Amino acid sequence: MIWLRLLVSVSACLLPGCASMPQQSQRGSHVEVASTLPTPSISTRYRETAERITRAILAENQAYDRLEELCVGIGHRLSGSIGLEKAIDWAMATMKSDGQVNVGRENVMVRHWVRGDESVTMLEPRVQKLNVLGLGDSVGTPPEGITAPVVVVADEEELEALGEGVRGKIVLFNRAMPPYDPRRGSGYGTAVRYRVHGARMAAERGAVGSLIRSVTASSLHTPHTGGMQYGDAPTRVPAAALTIEDTETIARLQSLGIPVVVNMKMEAKSLPDAVSANVIGELRGSTHPEEVVVIGGHIDSWDVGHGAHDDAGGCVIAMEAMHVLRKLNLIPRRTIRVVLWTNEENGLAGGKAYAAQHAGELGRHVAAIESDSGVFKPLGYGISCTEKDREAVAAAQLEEIMGLFPPEMGELTARIGGGGPDISPMRKAGVILMGHRVEGSRYFDYHHTHADTIDKVDREELSRNVAMMATVAYILADMPERFGGSPSP
Amino acid sequence: MIWLRLLVSVSACLLPGCASMPQQSQRGSHVEVASTLPTPSISTRYRETAERITRAILAENQAYDRLEELCVGIGHRLSGSIGLEKAIDWAMATMKSDGQVNVGRENVMVRHWVRGDESVTMLEPRVQKLNVLGLGDSVGTPPEGITAPVVVVADEEELEALGEGVRGKIVLFNRAMPPYDPRRGSGYGTAVRYRVHGARMAAERGAVGSLIRSVTASSLHTPHTGGMQYGDAPTRVPAAALTIEDTETIARLQSLGIPVVVNMKMEAKSLPDAVSANVIGELRGSTHPEEVVVIGGHIDSWDVGHGAHDDAGGCVIAMEAMHVLRKLNLIPRRTIRVVLWTNEENGLAGGKAYAAQHAGELGRHVAAIESDSGVFKPLGYGISCTEKDREAVAAAQLEEIMGLFPPEMGELTARIGGGGPDISPMRKAGVILMGHRVEGSRYFDYHHTHADTIDKVDREELSRNVAMMATVAYILADMPERFGGSPSP
Repeated sequence: MIWLRLLVSVSACLLPGCASMPQQSQRGSHVEVASTLPTPSISTRYRETAERITRAILAENQAYDRLEELCVGIGHRLSGSIGLEKAIDWAMATMKSDGQVNVGRENVMVRHWVRGDESVTMLEPRVQKLNVLGLGDSVGTPPEGITAPVVVVADEEELEALGEGVRGKIVLFNRAMPPYDPRRGSGYGTAVRYRVHGARMAAERGAVGSLIRSVTASSLHTPHTGGMQYGDAPTRVPAAALTIEDTETIARLQSLGIPVVVNMKMEAKSLPDAVSANVIGELRGSTHPEEVVVIGGHIDSWDVGHGAHDDAGGCVIAMEAMHVLRKLNLIPRRTIRVVLWTNEENGLAGGKAYAAQHAGELGRHVAAIESDSGVFKPLGYGISCTEKDREAVAAAQLEEIMGLFPPEMGELTARIGGGGPDISPMRKAGVILMGHRVEGSRYFDYHHTHADTIDKVDREELSRNVAMMATVAYILADMPERFGGSPSP
Repeated sequence: MIWLRLLVSVSACLLPGCASMPQQSQRGSHVEVASTLPTPSISTRYRETAERITRAILAENQAYDRLEELCVGIGHRLSGSIGLEKAIDWAMATMKSDGQVNVGRENVMVRHWVRGDESVTMLEPRVQKLNVLGLGDSVGTPPEGITAPVVVVADEEELEALGEGVRGKIVLFNRAMPPYDPRRGSGYGTAVRYRVHGARMAAERGAVGSLIRSVTASSLHTPHTGGMQYGDAPTRVPAAALTIEDTETIARLQSLGIPVVVNMKMEAKSLPDAVSANVIGELRGSTHPEEVVVIGGHIDSWDVGHGAHDDAGGCVIAMEAMHVLRKLNLIPRRTIRVVLWTNEENGLAGGKAYAAQHAGELGRHVAAIESDSGVFKPLGYGISCTEKDREAVAAAQLEEIMGLFPPEMGELTARIGGGGPDISPMRKAGVILMGHRVEGSRYFDYHHTHADTIDKVDREELSRNVAMMATVAYILADMPERFGGSPSP
């Protein structure tokens, strides 16, 4: 993604389509202007409303209590699990009790992978249980496990160089993720390659199992699960993640010339696809209800921890944003629709199904906003659209909106580039996609671990995220001209 | 402990006993002065030597390689384990190969507690395996485990208030350790109370098991083990530590009014005491070999991780300090003795045995220095002695020594107060005790966990610790006047 800091220089009245915008009656606290006058800027229209929404949320909201209901009352939510179905029911019940309309589930078939018991035990040079998480969609092992020598490689070239030396072994990919860098980000995108493809690479060279160093820069003996793909692997070998600590121990034993033998046992298996659902709820628009601003996150998680940052937080931010707007009686011109997608973690079936099931109305999707980067200090939004002129206009409008927040929200900015996994299937329909951005230094410490729990979520940061999403969703749904400059159809 | 920052104001020649010091021939790089002249200050005598030792160590040393041999090649070292005995053999072999003398083992009987398999599984409101570490010296459970409702309490008063409500339950002590504070320290001393005494408190009120929130301020789903004591408990109930995350989940379920039931299974048991040993090695003094400066750490660890910071690092710092002095041919007037104590973690049998077995020569112990606070940025030494006038003189001398290091060592200081667990049994004999001080913000993140591994030790910080200990040990062993002002007997 290319991050571009935008300067606020385009006022709304200069935008394509602006002149044709009908002027609406006063709503919320923005100001009616006669159609013969120049259209007021977003700042003029919405500053007071933005402050009202933000301060109301920072003063009081139910996001944290709801996060606790979801994370603690229900727990994790892997596709196919009872936890996920309970969470879907909870989300519908909660939105109904908030007075939202058109609340319902849109069924989606999802993968049903179950972990079962699993262990990796070092047998040589000494017996030691290692801390392991199997990778999602991995096959299991025979009941007695797979016992084999371990060969540690830093990357695919080292694997290649070993040639026949890999046959019959368990490969351990020791690819370190660099510490978080505020400018370069997490390095996750590069490091995750061996989690996704390591088992295929290993199997192609005759290995009988695949282990990875967990994809994180920081560990207190914490394994990280995540998705993997066999692709065209000649055989499907079991794949699991070890902690940084256990990986370092094995790698250093190898460096000291001490052979390592482990036993991998995994009951993991894939069952027939299960019925799940995206959850929908709406705040219907007053004058253009057929135009939609989608906000949401994914309701599924891995089967560890609470999935608090990934992505209970995103779901609760969107639900509470819409809840607060309704409580404040801020009914925008267009519809705000919360969508909680299912099966983001191991299939993206929810995101794909939403785009397919709503294909006929994607032209009336003003924007789709996803929060799936955890609940930390909010930073603003990243924006992308296949139509670059609309993207540029929308980004400038968004930057103007980012300037409307009171100082307690910190500096918020708009950037070109960004979206979210579940909204990405709407990209090719030309929908403007927006990723809810937060400070990123700790996200991958917790990502896909038993430690992604509600105690890692700061209540005040959660409130600020709700305020940012509620305000932006309201303005995008209410501004007379359509976001990004296209006239309303 | 009371920390006092001392000002460097006392020069060595003003100290009691100074006038009676015989002047020694030139040794190392310090300067001979005629006995009719005032005794030169420590600064004058030893600045050049201190810089020589420090720079030699910072340029090259074997500490990290040795730490790797101990941590990775051997692993953890609980009393009674094969790992501990291998470590003792390794330490003796290493000191012999370094050319040290009087290398040997001094046998000590130690507790022999074995963990066995253990698990805590939440059964209600949903089935979830929790991450657990049994506490050292805990009893086990019947093979089927103990299944009981959990009652969460913040402290002893809350436990007391529950009265009969505790009977038949498993108590979970949810006492949070505060984040590290550079001024107040870790808060470990207060928080550890429920680890040590929780099982007794719970059993006194009829509980059938005792769980604690791990004693740490920081967690990535990381349980912390450690010692516990039954004292006069009416019955011995099994005791284990949960992670912060699992503790928070159970405590919040209780707050939400959702009952929690768990099953605790522990195979833990105590076997008959085992033979272990303190390891000794010496750099014999040239003119007062009967006078001894002891330096060391404890060779045992808990049965998790590498025991890298606790306390492989302390052992290696002392061994390498003595090794470097011998390589540099810096033979002090008095003897430097490395002592690696056994069984610090669950009995302190090594420390007690050393004081008893060497009772006759403790009057000739110039100082005893222990490093048992991890391998982080070195800060200097804490010092204590039952004889307060000697303590004050020694502290002033030590502060002067702390000023001798080149700038790459950072600021080092001497403080009143400090020592170490294994040297504490020498206190009542009037030995000057010194604790090797390091920056403390991360120690309790790793303490007694699977995450106390060599990858958490910085190579440069390790070298700086070796330099600090080698220099101080050399000067204390070599200075003509006896450290603390008492004349040599």
